[in-house]
Amino acid sequence: MKKRVRGFSKLSKGSKIEWLSAHYFDHADRAREILEQYWNADEKLQRLHDEFAENTLSNFYMPFCVAPNFLIDGAAYALPMVTEESSVVAAAAKTALYWRDRGGFQTQVLGLKKVGQVHFLYHGDSDKLKAFFDRNQDRFLKATADLTQNMRARGGGITLLDLLDKSDLEPDYYQIFAQFNTVSAMGANFINSCLEELARTLKREVQQSPVFTAEEKDIEVIMCIVSNYTPECLVRAEVCCPVAQLTDVPGLSPLEFAEKFQRGVRLAQVEPYRAVTHNKGIMNGVDAVVIATGNDFRAVEAAAHAYAARDGQYRSLTQVDIRDGQFRFGLDLPLSVGTVGGLTSTHPLVKLALDTLGNPSAPDLMGIAAAAGLAQNFAAVRALVTTGIQRGHMKLHLSNILNQVEVAEEERGFFVNYFKDKAVSYATVRQVLDHLRRLADEGFIRWFFTR
Amino acid sequence: MKKRVRGFSKLSKGSKIEWLSAHYFDHADRAREILEQYWNADEKLQRLHDEFAENTLSNFYMPFCVAPNFLIDGAAYALPMVTEESSVVAAAAKTALYWRDRGGFQTQVLGLKKVGQVHFLYHGDSDKLKAFFDRNQDRFLKATADLTQNMRARGGGITLLDLLDKSDLEPDYYQIFAQFNTVSAMGANFINSCLEELARTLKREVQQSPVFTAEEKDIEVIMCIVSNYTPECLVRAEVCCPVAQLTDVPGLSPLEFAEKFQRGVRLAQVEPYRAVTHNKGIMNGVDAVVIATGNDFRAVEAAAHAYAARDGQYRSLTQVDIRDGQFRFGLDLPLSVGTVGGLTSTHPLVKLALDTLGNPSAPDLMGIAAAAGLAQNFAAVRALVTTGIQRGHMKLHLSNILNQVEVAEEERGFFVNYFKDKAVSYATVRQVLDHLRRLADEGFIRWFFTR
Repeated sequence: MKKRVRGFSKLSKGSKIEWLSAHYFDHADRAREILEQYWNADEKLQRLHDEFAENTLSNFYMPFCVAPNFLIDGAAYALPMVTEESSVVAAAAKTALYWRDRGGFQTQVLGLKKVGQVHFLYHGDSDKLKAFFDRNQDRFLKATADLTQNMRARGGGITLLDLLDKSDLEPDYYQIFAQFNTVSAMGANFINSCLEELARTLKREVQQSPVFTAEEKDIEVIMCIVSNYTPECLVRAEVCCPVAQLTDVPGLSPLEFAEKFQRGVRLAQVEPYRAVTHNKGIMNGVDAVVIATGNDFRAVEAAAHAYAARDGQYRSLTQVDIRDGQFRFGLDLPLSVGTVGGLTSTHPLVKLALDTLGNPSAPDLMGIAAAAGLAQNFAAVRALVTTGIQRGHMKLHLSNILNQVEVAEEERGFFVNYFKDKAVSYATVRQVLDHLRRLADEGFIRWFFTR
Repeated sequence: MKKRVRGFSKLSKGSKIEWLSAHYFDHADRAREILEQYWNADEKLQRLHDEFAENTLSNFYMPFCVAPNFLIDGAAYALPMVTEESSVVAAAAKTALYWRDRGGFQTQVLGLKKVGQVHFLYHGDSDKLKAFFDRNQDRFLKATADLTQNMRARGGGITLLDLLDKSDLEPDYYQIFAQFNTVSAMGANFINSCLEELARTLKREVQQSPVFTAEEKDIEVIMCIVSNYTPECLVRAEVCCPVAQLTDVPGLSPLEFAEKFQRGVRLAQVEPYRAVTHNKGIMNGVDAVVIATGNDFRAVEAAAHAYAARDGQYRSLTQVDIRDGQFRFGLDLPLSVGTVGGLTSTHPLVKLALDTLGNPSAPDLMGIAAAAGLAQNFAAVRALVTTGIQRGHMKLHLSNILNQVEVAEEERGFFVNYFKDKAVSYATVRQVLDHLRRLADEGFIRWFFTR
């Protein structure tokens, strides 16, 4: 069978690239050259990065940026942000400076509870199982004592064990619903290990107990797994100032701006098509910090959007309150992140990012990432309800197109000026460029455009 | 005010790093060294990457990997994947080979409709506005004709314009609800430009029409913006084989495995805490392809999770059907991606990724990314309902810890063997390592552990 390969992961990086080139590229050398030009000259460092995933061929560059001037809970931060979206860092930096002069961001951790579940089937008397479980909780805690020892020493561990009858959802379906405090670790591995031990303990204890019938003893564990849904591992970020201080929007009084802004956010509370985009913008900021600090953005995304839909309709994660002359803009976000373990101690740029943030605890990082999300949303809604989103985007869009058509540095100014009041598209840039080059070719103008 | 800076974005990269080091690091040189060691030796290439975002200081490495052996709609692919999560590529590759021998993945684009909205306030007769809008649709299409010209030439453009009375959600709130076909572009810029033109046209046409009162003419545009919610830009990916072919799970008959697997997926349909994690795993695969191909993963994430909650409860995006001896596993995923424009034509590794995929159209890429998501979910559910997730994770977790405690290459085998049947944690690895080093220090063993 064509292009089928076995044992690919065991090949050397060079052989992997050779195989890929031979099977998917006409010009084999070209692919290798592109992949190799992204390798780090330091072989040891490169090997470290190769080991972060399987079948690594090269390093995908994402811009590692900083947004300075964040004032969060009274401390000054330059936020490390990793994002490929050109407007995200600029918006964060601009908003940071704006709110720096208005008291900065206030954050508050509303909860640190993470969830894991042992899903299992039990064929028998529900009350009996529940009573048995509650009576013997100490056995479950004891069985996991070795695993939780270090976490307990740091102030965390298993904080709740509950037995839930879920047989209304699926015949004979039950759960051990466990809550954890994982302190500064994201904790997925820790939680999964604990859950597998809890499952073993459940089977053993039930089997050894005389109170259960043979059928009841036949517990079938379906799966043991951490939940990425963490509505009680929650952080709040807010900005707040007198309405009168919202002064710098041309053509609008502070109150007019505040009310327009509030309406912009309200639309995202009532209209799901708007809400999804609104929250996506929040996550632009959150994810940039999450990635820079070595955390798992898929977990953070999943929790955030599920939380946005928790009341049955998908809604904005931010809200605005205008009262007694005060403008208050806030975000509640479930956010399970870690500042120890995983990439946080192995990826040199992640370490640098955490250093830049003063090596925060996980709760501190929750506040910082939430502030980044709130800042992003402020910038987006502000742009949308005033000048429109396209003005800023178009500037960046133009810059990308100019890269693409390979306009030289010294020619850029002309295009930036030309498109100041026109809609930018690839076609129009190309048109103008071709026109100018033709004029130059024909000798009508002498200019840069003569390549 | 301490650590406050103005005009930061206008500083040179070197000056930015200098400022950051001076304000946030005790050892200024160390930060600069780490950032610089990730710069590309090719200055022109580095400048290109610097320009993708603002305040770029360095390149954040994400592993650029391939998962070979994907058979999708009869064609063989090696999927480019960018992910920092160590198990994702291994799981994708393993599943690809498994399904390659069972017919591979089938995909189907169920829709290509993207949405944009002009949100506005209108104080007046709703029916009058609706009738006027419907009667004059051609004027709106004509006003946007220049902007849509190229897209129409490629077979896309504005496919629907509707006027919606949303005043039940917010007083006087209306929308132009527009649908677009953006062919192989993601299309956000195109859609936003069209919407701003539609808004201008709306204001102008209503103002110039004699049918409206002065109050009705006073239309206030709230915002014009693409929606990242694309339930009708939808792709389906499936795998299917006779149950009898699900042969390779130790200790389970094919039908037992099929039913365990189905129950595993069903839990994620009925139980939100499980569903979030389940879908997170799908997105592990989807995002890895989305990032490698230069697309915006926040947009894809937001649409996917909102779609998962569309009926009022957050549920699994995949489902299993076992009927007439056939096992069928499928994923429906809203997925708005592009294969032209943006990073797709500027980031060299994105270009290489698209080359590897044979330069797919956007609908093709939808199928490919969905297959990656389905593969990831298959691997996760299979592991969860059989051996448990921790066995595989722990192997990778151990590898990360060994990097962290700086265990040399030749010492690794010992640890891998030692932890084969034990729960891995940083503490236990550390413990074993310290113990061995102490024994070596005291002369009891002569081994590698003598540093």
